[in-house]
Parts: sequence; structure tokens; C-alpha cells
Amino acid sequence: MMYNTSAGIVPGKINVHLVPHSHDDVGWLKTVDQYYVGSNNSIQVACVQNVLDSLIPALVADKNRKFIYVEQAITHGFFALLSFDFLLEINGGMCMHDEAAPHYIDMIDQTTLGHRYIKEQFNVTPRIGWQIDPFGHSAVQAYLLSAEVGFDFLFFARIDYQDRAKRINEKTLEVVWRASKSLGSSAQIMTGISPKNYEPPSDNFYFEVGDTSPIVQDDMNLFDYNVPERVNDFVSAAIAQANITRTNHIMWTMGTDFKYQYAHTWFRQMDKFIHYVNQDGRVNALYSTPSMYIDAKYAANESWPLKTDDFFPYADRENAYWTGYFTSRPALKGYVRTMSAYYLAARQLEFFKGRNEVGLSTDSLADALALVQHHDAVSGTEKQHVADDYAKRLSIGYTECPLLNISYCPPSEVDLSSGKSLVVVVYNPLGWKREDIIRIPVINENVTVKDSKGKVIESQLLPLLKDSMSLRNSYSTAYLGKSTNVTPSYWLAFSASVPPLGFNTYIISSAKQAASHSGMRTVYKSQISQNDTIEVGPGNLKLLYSGKRAKLMRYINSKTSVNKLLEQSYIYYRGDDGSKDLQVTRVYKGKDHAEIEFTVGPIPIDDGIGKEVVTQITSNMISNKTFYTDSSGRDFIERIRDYRKDWNLEVNQPIAGNYYPVNLGIYMKDNSSELSILVDRSVGGSSIADGQLELMLHRRLVADDNRGVSEALNETVCVFDKCEGLTIIGKYYLRIDPVGEAAKWRRSFGQEIYSPFLLAFTEQDGDHWANSHLATYSAMDTTYVLPDNVALITLQELDSGKVLLRLAHLYEIEEDTDLSVMSSVELKKVFPKKKISKVTEMNLSANQERAVMEKKRLVWRVEGSSKEQPTAVRGSPVDPAKLVVELAPMEIRTFVIEFYSERGSFSDALYRRSNLRRKATFSLP
Amino acid sequence: MMYNTSAGIVPGKINVHLVPHSHDDVGWLKTVDQYYVGSNNSIQVACVQNVLDSLIPALVADKNRKFIYVEQAITHGFFALLSFDFLLEINGGMCMHDEAAPHYIDMIDQTTLGHRYIKEQFNVTPRIGWQIDPFGHSAVQAYLLSAEVGFDFLFFARIDYQDRAKRINEKTLEVVWRASKSLGSSAQIMTGISPKNYEPPSDNFYFEVGDTSPIVQDDMNLFDYNVPERVNDFVSAAIAQANITRTNHIMWTMGTDFKYQYAHTWFRQMDKFIHYVNQDGRVNALYSTPSMYIDAKYAANESWPLKTDDFFPYADRENAYWTGYFTSRPALKGYVRTMSAYYLAARQLEFFKGRNEVGLSTDSLADALALVQHHDAVSGTEKQHVADDYAKRLSIGYTECPLLNISYCPPSEVDLSSGKSLVVVVYNPLGWKREDIIRIPVINENVTVKDSKGKVIESQLLPLLKDSMSLRNSYSTAYLGKSTNVTPSYWLAFSASVPPLGFNTYIISSAKQAASHSGMRTVYKSQISQNDTIEVGPGNLKLLYSGKRAKLMRYINSKTSVNKLLEQSYIYYRGDDGSKDLQVTRVYKGKDHAEIEFTVGPIPIDDGIGKEVVTQITSNMISNKTFYTDSSGRDFIERIRDYRKDWNLEVNQPIAGNYYPVNLGIYMKDNSSELSILVDRSVGGSSIADGQLELMLHRRLVADDNRGVSEALNETVCVFDKCEGLTIIGKYYLRIDPVGEAAKWRRSFGQEIYSPFLLAFTEQDGDHWANSHLATYSAMDTTYVLPDNVALITLQELDSGKVLLRLAHLYEIEEDTDLSVMSSVELKKVFPKKKISKVTEMNLSANQERAVMEKKRLVWRVEGSSKEQPTAVRGSPVDPAKLVVELAPMEIRTFVIEFYSERGSFSDALYRRSNLRRKATFSLP
Repeated sequence: MMYNTSAGIVPGKINVHLVPHSHDDVGWLKTVDQYYVGSNNSIQVACVQNVLDSLIPALVADKNRKFIYVEQAITHGFFALLSFDFLLEINGGMCMHDEAAPHYIDMIDQTTLGHRYIKEQFNVTPRIGWQIDPFGHSAVQAYLLSAEVGFDFLFFARIDYQDRAKRINEKTLEVVWRASKSLGSSAQIMTGISPKNYEPPSDNFYFEVGDTSPIVQDDMNLFDYNVPERVNDFVSAAIAQANITRTNHIMWTMGTDFKYQYAHTWFRQMDKFIHYVNQDGRVNALYSTPSMYIDAKYAANESWPLKTDDFFPYADRENAYWTGYFTSRPALKGYVRTMSAYYLAARQLEFFKGRNEVGLSTDSLADALALVQHHDAVSGTEKQHVADDYAKRLSIGYTECPLLNISYCPPSEVDLSSGKSLVVVVYNPLGWKREDIIRIPVINENVTVKDSKGKVIESQLLPLLKDSMSLRNSYSTAYLGKSTNVTPSYWLAFSASVPPLGFNTYIISSAKQAASHSGMRTVYKSQISQNDTIEVGPGNLKLLYSGKRAKLMRYINSKTSVNKLLEQSYIYYRGDDGSKDLQVTRVYKGKDHAEIEFTVGPIPIDDGIGKEVVTQITSNMISNKTFYTDSSGRDFIERIRDYRKDWNLEVNQPIAGNYYPVNLGIYMKDNSSELSILVDRSVGGSSIADGQLELMLHRRLVADDNRGVSEALNETVCVFDKCEGLTIIGKYYLRIDPVGEAAKWRRSFGQEIYSPFLLAFTEQDGDHWANSHLATYSAMDTTYVLPDNVALITLQELDSGKVLLRLAHLYEIEEDTDLSVMSSVELKKVFPKKKISKVTEMNLSANQERAVMEKKRLVWRVEGSSKEQPTAVRGSPVDPAKLVVELAPMEIRTFVIEFYSERGSFSDALYRRSNLRRKATFSLP
Repeated sequence: MMYNTSAGIVPGKINVHLVPHSHDDVGWLKTVDQYYVGSNNSIQVACVQNVLDSLIPALVADKNRKFIYVEQAITHGFFALLSFDFLLEINGGMCMHDEAAPHYIDMIDQTTLGHRYIKEQFNVTPRIGWQIDPFGHSAVQAYLLSAEVGFDFLFFARIDYQDRAKRINEKTLEVVWRASKSLGSSAQIMTGISPKNYEPPSDNFYFEVGDTSPIVQDDMNLFDYNVPERVNDFVSAAIAQANITRTNHIMWTMGTDFKYQYAHTWFRQMDKFIHYVNQDGRVNALYSTPSMYIDAKYAANESWPLKTDDFFPYADRENAYWTGYFTSRPALKGYVRTMSAYYLAARQLEFFKGRNEVGLSTDSLADALALVQHHDAVSGTEKQHVADDYAKRLSIGYTECPLLNISYCPPSEVDLSSGKSLVVVVYNPLGWKREDIIRIPVINENVTVKDSKGKVIESQLLPLLKDSMSLRNSYSTAYLGKSTNVTPSYWLAFSASVPPLGFNTYIISSAKQAASHSGMRTVYKSQISQNDTIEVGPGNLKLLYSGKRAKLMRYINSKTSVNKLLEQSYIYYRGDDGSKDLQVTRVYKGKDHAEIEFTVGPIPIDDGIGKEVVTQITSNMISNKTFYTDSSGRDFIERIRDYRKDWNLEVNQPIAGNYYPVNLGIYMKDNSSELSILVDRSVGGSSIADGQLELMLHRRLVADDNRGVSEALNETVCVFDKCEGLTIIGKYYLRIDPVGEAAKWRRSFGQEIYSPFLLAFTEQDGDHWANSHLATYSAMDTTYVLPDNVALITLQELDSGKVLLRLAHLYEIEEDTDLSVMSSVELKKVFPKKKISKVTEMNLSANQERAVMEKKRLVWRVEGSSKEQPTAVRGSPVDPAKLVVELAPMEIRTFVIEFYSERGSFSDALYRRSNLRRKATFSLP
């Protein structure tokens, strides 16, 4: 029997857009490869190969059928076999990234990777955001990763249950989301929220092999003919949804996780529904895509409610806040951030050197990093073995000193007493000149550090403490599978100064005299004497401790005149303090912030109680329930305790319900000052009491949370067969500024945290290296640095030889008196050694020209806004003669730059002289 | 990646024949239609449409791939889409019939239906028996349904665990099975028994969507590459099986129940195994079929062990005998037997009348009856709702008086007092002249019965007892959904005499005088007086009862001088006697057997204990542990209590382990006499003590037996909302003969039981009917009847206008002094009114000429039999001039007969004169 599936939209009727889809996580309960090939089915029945293989005949069999697919990373290029554009119209990144734990630069990178791949392979430009599964939705997702990539629609499913109930009641599930204060309506996105989830409308419409929904039995020669009943089911569900939806178009997401393993089973039933429902005539059913759906919505010329800010935090029901995951797996989150930095810098070096035609490149790291942005990857919501798989993939692109944080770094642990010296090349991936402390483990006591001119510079040897040594020994053994045979005794610390997009070289060698102990102060818990107060800080900033309580007491900055009482403590949620934590607080000369390095773990669970370790910074500021957290490392959003802007919050979880993701930092302010904390990785943070900020640093649980993982979050590390809870070493940074003056530090230093110095080590006999290699270098014009409010967030050679350049203004409007202004970058000085032939401004994901994107963009009407919104300020088009890029507050501009061909002197020189074998020899401190 | 799947057989290596298959019951936990369309998946995930749909691309994609499929009934002709003969080479019946509960005539019919369909549609002749799932295996299956249909191989999986263990140990899983004493080596079959089941060799080789076996991960670009491990798994499993198998060919049954719902998942993995295992080279793997497998075995020219008798009973492990099902669902089993009789007779009438080109035919009943022979249908091993579905299908082909057994028959319950009379047309489907008692319910007290010549004949009115009336009222209400408004008061009984393949007419009308109460004796429990002994029986046979104990005491036949003490009792297994059973024992003048009509139920389960109701006949015969039960209603096989011929039986279930299926009868003997019991349906029977025979008549259980059905066998009948345990009314027949003289009754009367008179009713005003209709008729020459040792078991008009005729010799060799001899049938006298143009002898299932079959047949060598077996006696080819068919003992011969065209006078006359609307107006008494 043939079914008539050719229905299009019928005006005047309820149109049920059936959107067939499979949501195939690129790693959750199984690894991405296990999902692809369908192994490990005892954990989860899921095989993406089945989905893809069975789609071909299903789509070929009937051209009316549709299907959409998001996760490019798992398709292995499979869709090259098909020529159905609709498969690729949604998302188009390598994965459906999380929106809480990833940094916006990583989100841009993974989206660009996918978008350019799809454009090159299939000439398709995705136009729909399809974030159906992430556990809350960020402002950055809306205005950057949707509007700025050129999407016409963003669809998702998970929002707070209270929010959803109100939206259902008020028919406001579909909104115009204007998420950026700075860019306003120029970067808004039409957004659809599912009335329930991303599955069929009721339990009655699942058609996987093994699903139990009644099939449409339309063979009158057999028993159980049920077409009338099933048509009634369909019509009832359609009318129910139409009653809470504006316009007469509704979308049914026909699929869910890993469905369509035998695609035919779904299409067979949908064919019948379309045929018989349309014969019935009460509603109109059609195969559709989100793109067809949104075009129909647009044609209705409706006005839509306005939504600002974001959709965090997310609770799927009472007492079920998904906020712990902001901190889950802090080691993985830290590792991702480390690799992001490495990837950003490595692409710069790859460009300077010239991409290898064959062999090693940054590509595999790009893939691994893209994958780990998935909403069950860096989020920490995957099973342990899957988290391990993500880490393994990252590690493959990274070679030296991954354990530098626990003082394990074989290249630096060379015996210098024999006359050898250690060469440290320090690379600065930022567009600013920069001075920073370098710390490396060494085995010799008497060492001296010389700069690239051969001048001895100030350095300091800090003995490795017993607890640190113990951690180093056990974790390096866990890493290597055997004990290390070299044990460093000291941290060697010295200050390195490096030009923008450049490097400097330092030589460490044996010295008669021990390194100076002066010039840099370091405070250890063990140094606290019986005195009542200890003053710490070599520069403007002094921290005064009470020796007896070992808690921070007073923060004094002589330059800014800030003088505040402060208390810093650790607490556990759900348990008593049984901490063995060792904390080191560092204050550097010339840096007006405190660096707090914490060591948390193993979290004790002997009492059978899982715990979440939180650090609290308590001041006497009058913060008035208000604090600020960043959106995906970019915009700061105001948070008010126990309050939501969109509905009257019913508070049932006064802690979990006030947690927000922190990627860059968290701050609070009162009339006189601002207290800011910046983080080295994604964490959860809040202000549970006025004057107080807190960060959740680590968590270890003994029970599963019944959200599908079926595994308690209980990370352990095993040395041979002995396992114990994972210990986390991390840092956060604290500073108090006079009110209104804090943004500079948050933005500039935040960028330094994201992009630390990259170190490379080698040994030399005598002065061999120094004589044969370039010792210091900047890729930019030596007279030029980028403006303080602009960061170079992408510099990458494309396969075509062209260069992808992305510049980001770091400030929001009204964020800083001096820096929230239009800024400009002189491209000629960024590329002084090359001649630019063409600059093409692209959309954010660089799969289309910006002008083309703007022209295509659907313009949605906002309810009640009769007058025009003030147009957001943006930089002007780039004059090809001047080659100056203007950037307005929060603007990110993306360019493809072409050069006149002249084999670069730099890259040849670098390659020849520095003997830089490959990008992977650099290591982050 | 392409895989090399082209491997054939490699001499000198272990050849692993991978035989992809899906075992799709045509009704078990779900109904056949539910299995086909895939509804009701909450009971079982099974959708045959998925299997069939997904097979096409899988088989088209690689011509080396194979697949076999048994259940034609569920394919709905699907394979017409494919041109792969191998799909159809096995079984080829409409279903995989059971081997305990079906009668051999039903087995032949359902196999013929499938075989002729496959031959006509696809020109394929199946050559392999594939009885993988039935719960024990009958001799008839081996020699009739395998050898006589032309199979070269019979494969199955379920045999007694002790038997299997011995066969594995002795490498005797593959045998030549010579199951017929009479036909010997002329009807033997090469038989393969699976070493375990009909599934892959270990848990590691299941590849359904959702199965958890490790897939072959051969993509080196992904993690978890496992080709070496998986090849090792395969080779190990192959060697293990080769070690218990003769020749170097082993078969792997790659599939199981309802697998291949997405066929690709299996073929994808098998492709890889064949590719990599053959690259490895230790063993050779190939896509194969049972046909390829058996040809390879045959080529090895090996000798094989001999097996005789059968494979009953079956225990899958200690204390797990599958013998209860011989009796399970006695109502369904009885209904099947009723419909078989109806079908046999209806086809005769259909032929006489001429098949309708369009409209009603016996075809739908043929389909329903074929389906119900399935090993989860008449066997009683299906869920209740599926049993209901089978019954519903049977009922559709049957219209009048299905409840005659409980005295509900509206056509006979007409009020005759107004002057109307009831016409009863009595059809005799046997080839013998026949006299038998007819019993019908009537409402009038004064009735008279006239024969076709208008002569009043002896009749008797028997008042309906209170208990019977109560049963009638509640069951007819359950059937109709409302109470009946007419209530008969009497059974009217009279003796009808009908010519072979013919009918006679009786007229029942109102009479002044009541029908005679003399001439036929009937004994009721209520009639037992306080006298010590009651003598019952109008003829040679007298039964003497003790009035006090109501148990049979003495059996006396004055003609044969048999005089035996007998006791008949009911017992429950697993519970006390709480019977409300009403038994009627009838002894008819001219019949030397007792007819025992039992009413069993509702079986009480208030005590929470399930019960199995058994009737025991106890004599003082010295039966020496030995008794005899029929194989599928045909050959009698000697059974010895607590003993198996093939191995030393470890007795752990002295009752269940001695039960055997009974389709025709059970008997025992000693030096002087034989005590035989014949049954009206399939039941289980045994002899648990010497001198005693027993039949299990009904069972009602409260717990599932953990064999997959997940439902206790607890049949109930509901009147409106009130349900109680099902009551069974049935009959068995008992006779004691002098030793050596019992076969005649068993064979001749057994055939009468299988083919009772068929009744049709109509009313007439005055003598209208008698004047306008033929009153008596025989299709055969009026001077001719079939020999006593021959039955006409099939007479059926084929679509082509040809006729299918099947004649069966009813005696085994040495069974009866007079009748175990060559017999002959004169076809000219069977078809006196038509002229035979051609007689073609066919194989049993009539899908090929017998001569062709014999020529193709593989001849297997039997171990140790150096000299030739004596050739079995068989009838000679039919001389086309004489048209006489010879039949040797136990021989069944099948012919397709063609006639010279001359529109039959009979059929026109019958149609015109008897106003026989359609075949379905006949009803069985």
C-alpha cells in the first residue's frame, strides 16, 4: 500500500510538523566510538551506524520524508553519501555543546569546525540552533552561537519547570531572545521552547524497534485494525499542543536519544499517520524540518514576547536543580581549559611556521576539543569510563608536562650539575606584552636563570613540601604505571617577560650560589608563627592573616586604598569538614590580586555521605542579594538570590537553586567596592549570604542522581590496585577594587588566565642553543600591541592557506569608563611581515560572508515594541586600504585574510633556528 | 570497507556453516497478526514485518549472504518480492507444527498447503526439515513429514538433556532416523540435533539491535579495535563444536526467536567474521544454508548411527519434563479436532459441488487449521489471548452448532408442535458404510423420527439433567453475550445409517406418542440404585457397576468372552479430589465399546494449588511396565515405564517422565487381552502402574512454569463479569479385546472418531423438503466401499480443477492378522460419475512427482549395517488402464487426478436439489 506523504502546509488548519530526529550524544553512557559502532550495548542500546545505515533506504524510498541530525562528530562524514540538505540544517557544530561548562572561545571553535566542514563538503549553511538536551541555556548561546552565526531559530527543551508552567499558561514558549545588553536587537534570536521535551508528544508515538506504542494497524485483512483510534490519538495530541502555541503551526520532535536504529520503523508509522490524519482532515500532518517550521511561523507575521538574560539554573522538577554539574569532574574541566589554551596558542604557532601538508597538525586536538564541549563531556555528566575517554583523546594531542601542576615535568628535571643547561622557551599567545611568574620543578639546589641576553635574573628556589611530594609521587606513578626515578626538590620561580604573539628564551644552569630568596614572597601555612597577625605581600597588596585561625583577616591595597575584612573558609555541603586540604595563597609583586592554589581531596566518604567542597569568601559588603556571573566566559549577568526575572520563583532549594555556572569569574559589589573572583576552569558559584561569594571546587557523591547515568559521581585515582578519591589542585584569583574600577582586572587578567604562557624545554651543552637560535621574537610589529580592550581569540591557518582571524572586544557597554568604547586593530601591524591581499568579514562561524548572513536573516517582531529599538553600535566595514578593524563593546569580528604569496621569512626562520619539532612540544605552566 | 564473504567450503578445514535465520512463531505470546505488524510490543518485542522489510536490502547488498525462513503463514506472500530460493528451502509448511498434539492428517494438510503454495509461487521444493523449536519429536514427523515429503535432512534442537549429553559424548548428534517399522529404510531421514539450541554457539554471537555481544570493531581509527579477540572467540567456539561433530562441517544457527528485526545488524557482523576468520585461516567460515550443509555432509560419505522410534518425552533439564502440554487447553485441542473433521468433510463436499471461483471456500478454514498446528497453538503453550485468537480464526470457518456438545443448537431447537418438521442431513465422510447414533437437543416432548423413505425409526428422548442444563445456560450465555430464549428439554437420540462418502436424510416431527424409551440403554449416575450391582449394556457388552462406589467393577463381552475386573477413577495430581465431575458412560447396542463422556471442571484452585485431572483405568492385567501410544495418530510405539531405549534413564520424575502424547489411543496388553482407550482429542497418557492406564483430561495451574509464557495456564469462562474455571466435556472410548484382536477396533473406530457424521439442519413445512431434494446419496459406486484397512484421508479439488486424493493404509506390519496386508482401491469406483484422464502419484505434500522425489533423494549410509536392509513393501505404480491403487501396511499414497471434462451431474444436482448454501452449513455432532 502506498501512503500519501506529500502534504505541505495547509493554511487555516493546525499544521503538525513532524520532525524526525535522533539525538545521538557523542559520549555519555558510552564513548563516542562505542556509540558509533554499537559496542558496549549492555550499558546502553545505541549504535549510530545503525541509524545512519538505515536512513539511506528510508529517505531514498520516499522523497517527502525528512530527518535532521546534529552531531557531526559522530557521523564520520557519513552524510557525504546522501544529498539531503535538511539533514544538516541544524546546529552543524561537531557536537551539541553544553552551555554552562564550555568557554565561549571553545564553543566558537567547535561550531566553526563543524560549520566549515559542512560548508566545504556539502555546501550547506545551517540555519537552526537545536540545543534540545543541554541543561540550561546561556546568553552567549543565544546571541553569539545563534544570532552571530546566522541562525534564524534556536530550539531547546530543558527549562525550569516553573518557568515552563508559566509559559505554557501564557503561550510564551516561543520568544525573541535578546541576550546581549551590548548588541541588543542586532544579535537577537527567535527561540522555541518545547512544551515538554524533545520526544514525541506522548507515550503513544514511539516507534523504535522494541517500543510499545500502538502501531497503526491499517490492514483490514488482519485483526486489530485501529486506524480510527490512532487518528483520534493524533488529533487530540495536536489540538492539545495547538492550544498552548501561537499560530497554527506546531512541531513534533519525532525521536529521542539514539532512536532510528532501524529508521524504517518510524517512517512506516509516520507515513500512515500523515496519510490517515490528512484523510480525516481535522488537522494537517506533514513531514517537516525546523527550517520549514520556522518559515511557516515567520510567514504568520506574529509578534513575539521578549526574553533577556539566560535560562540558568535549570530544575526539571521540584528539588531537582541541575547545578552540581557546573563543578562535576573539576579535573576534566581543568584539563579542557588547559587544552583550549594550548590549542589557541598552537594554531598561532602552526600559522607562523606554515601548516604541514601531511603529518602532525592541530587537527586531532581540534577534534578532541570539539568533542569535549559536548553537553555530557566537559559538563561532567557522563559515566566515568567516558570521561576517561574524553581525557585520553585530549591527551593524544598534548605531549609534555601534563602533570606540571603536581611538579612532575621530566624535561625540567635534568641534572644541571654536569654542566648542561636547560633552555626554556616561553611563548605568549596574547596580543599584549606580558610579564608573569614561571614555576618549574628542578632537582639541583644551586641554579641560576639567565635571560635571552645572557643576563642573570632574579629567581627563587622553593622547597617542595612533603604533602606536595607525596601527591607528586602517587599521581605520577598512577600516570606512568611505575614510580619515577627522578625526584625534584624545588620549585624554581622566576619572572618572564615576553612580547605579544612572541617568545623569549631563558637559560637555567648550575650556579655556585643558591638562587635568591628575596624579591618574591610566598606564604605557607607551615610558616604561620605564633604571632597573632602575619602580613603577606611584596607590593601594593598586603594580606593580613590571623596566625591562630589561619583564615584571611584583612585585605589592604595601598594603591587603591581598599581595606576590607575578609574571611576565607572551606565548607562541605552534606557533611562535616574532614578536609586534608593544603592551600597556598600567593601574592606577587606587581600583581594586585591574590592567587589561591587549593588542593582538595580525597574527599572522605567513609561515613557514607557524599560531599561537595565549597570555598566561601566572606566580607562585610552590603551586596543586597545581588551578584554577577559570566555567561560562558563572556558577558556578566546580574543574579539576585532567590529571584527570577521571568516568574515568581517558588524557593525550595535555597542553595542549589542559587548556583550559576562560572567560567570567567564571579563578583559582587556595594557602594564602595567590588570583590571579584576569577577561576581557572568552569565551576559553580553563588552568593548564599550577603557579602559572601562561594565557589564549589570539588564534589564526590555516593549515590546516583537518577538522571540516567546510573553511576555515582565518585572519581578515584588508582596507584597499582589501590584507589582513593581524586585530589584536585586548582587556582582562583581574588581582588577587591573600588566600585566601578574592577572590570579592567577581570577582563585583562581573565584573558591571561585563559591563555597562560606556553613553555618549551630543551637542553644545551654550553651555549650551543643560544648561539644557533633566535632568542626572542614577536609576530607583530615590534612597536605594536593590541588595545587593552581587544583580544585575538583566533589566529589559524586554513587548509586553503588563508588565515582565520577573530578579534574580540572584551568589554560590555558601560562596563568600564575608559574601555567600553569603540576600539580598533591595525591589521598591517598584526601581520607586519606579510602583505594582505584581501580581507573578508565572515559570520562568527566563518561559513558565510557576514553581509550575506545579514541579508538573509529573518527579522522578527517583538510584542509591544512599537518603536524601533536603538541600533547597537558596531564596527564599520574594513577599508581595504587602511585595514583597520573597529570593534564595538562585546563585538567579535571574524575575518578570512588572504596574503600575497611570499614564503614567510618568519616561519622558515623559526623552523630552522629554534628547532621546534612540532607544535606539540609546548607545554603550559 | 568491503568484506570478502565469498568463501565456499574448504576441504580439510573445519567449515563453519553460518546459517542466518529467524524463528518467528505464528502465535505464542502475541497473535500471528500482532507478530506480523509488530503491535503489542509490551508483551514481546517482535515484528515480522521488520524482519522481512530489512531482509531485502541486506540480501540484495551481498549475494553471498543467506537466510532461511520457515513460517510461511506469517509472511503474507512477502517473499514474492525476492528471488532467493534459499529462503524457502526449509520446512515450507504454513507453520512449524507441533509434533505431539497435531494429528498426522492435519500435519499433512498444513504442509501440503505450504508446499504447494511455494511450488506454485516460487517453483521451489523445500528439502530440509527444520523443527527447531517443538518440544519433542514424533516418528511421524521423521518418516512421513520428512522422508515422505522428500526432505534430505531433518534438523531440530530440543531433545532430552540426558539423551543430548550422551550424544555429545558419543558424537551421535547426527543420525539416520528410521522411524517406521512398516516402511523401514524406505522412509528414513538423515537427522541433525543441535548441540545446544537453535541459537548462536555462545552468548557472544548475538547481533540484534539491543544485543550485548561484542561487535567486531575493525576500524583502526577508532578505539577498542578487537578483531584478534573476536576471531579467537570464533575459532574457539568452532573447534569446541567440531570436537563433538562427525566430519569437519559444523552448522551455526545464527539467529533465534524474532531476530533480524533489522537484518543488517547481523549481516554486518557476520560479514566481518567471515572476512577476518578466513584471513586468520585456522577455520573456514561461510554463509550457508542447511541444504549446503547437508550436501557437504553427504559428500563426506560417512556412516551414521541409526535411531528408531521417537524423541518423546522431552525434558530440558532435571525435573523439567514438557509433558503437561500434551493435555494443556483441552477445549482448544478438542476444537481443533472438530474443525479438522469438518475440513476433511467440507473439502469432499466442495469437490462434489465444484469449487466456487469466487466467494466462500474452504481456504480460510485451511489457513486457520494450518496455523493452529503451530507448536505454540494446538500444543496449548501460548498465552491465553493467543489461544483465543486461534479459536476465533477457526470459528470463522464454522457456523452451525459449535456448542452442540453442551446441547446448545438453535437449528434443532425449533418448535415442532406447530406442524413444522426438522430436516437433518447426515453426511458420512468415510469411505465405509456406517451406522451411528445421532444426538440433538429438542424442545418438544412428543417427537418422531422418519428415515429418508418416510419410515418411522426407533428413537429415544433423554431428559436433560439439571447439571447439564446449568452448564448449557451459562456457556451459551458466555458465547452469545446474552441468555438464550429457547431451552431444550431433551436429547433426542436415533441411529443413522449413511453410505460411504454420502448422506442420508432424517425428518423429525411432532408425534402423538412419545419416542420409545426402549431399544437403547443409557446409564446415569442418578440412576444408580441402592442395589449392589447394576448391569448396563443392551448388546454383547455388559458393564457391571457397584452402586455404592459408583466405580466400574466388571467388563463382560459375551461375544469375545472377555471378562475383566476394572476400576475407573479420577484423581488429581498435586491436590485432593474436589471434583464436581459428572460422568456419563454409554454402551450402545451393536458397539462393543464403552463411551465415557466426562465433564471436568471448574477445577478448584481456592486452596492456591493448581491441579491436573487424570482418569485412571485399573485392571489386573500383567502389563509388565509396557504400554503403547500412537505417534501423531498413526503408528503405535512401545513405551516402557522408567526406561529409554537410547540411554540409561536417570529417573527423577516417575510420573511426568512417563507421559506420552496420545492422539489416537493408548493400550496395554498381557497374555490374554488388550485394553485399549481411544481419545477424541490430543491428550497426555501413561501407565504409571502395571495393569493401569491413565489419561490427563484437564489441567489448571496457578503458577507459570518459567518457560517463557509468563502466564499461568488458568483457563476461565466468563458470564458477563463472573469468571470461573473452564469446564471440559469430552469423551474417551474403552474396549477390552482378546490379545491380538484389538487393532481392528482401534483403527476402524479411531477413524470414525476422527471423522464423525456431519449434520446439516433445515426446517420444512409439510413434506416440501423431502419432495424436492435428494434424500440419500453416495459419491462412490453404490456397490463399492473402501477396504477396511484403507481410509480416504484427502479428497480435495485443487485450484486447477484437478483433484488431490490421499489414501492411507491404516495398519502397521504384523498389527492385524487379516488387515496388515496389501490392499487396493479401485479409483474408477471411487469416482463412478467422472472419467479419469490422468493419475499422477505425488510425494506426500504433493509438490513434486513421487518418482522425481525418489530419484533426487540422498541415500545415507548407516553405521554397522553392512548388508542391505530388507526392502519395505510398497504398492506398485498405478496402471493407467486399471486405475487400481495398491497400499502396503502404513503406506499413504498421494495422487493428483485429472478428469475428462464433463460438468458433473452430481454437483449440479446436489446444489440444485439440496439447496446447500455453502459448505459451512454442516455441523459435527
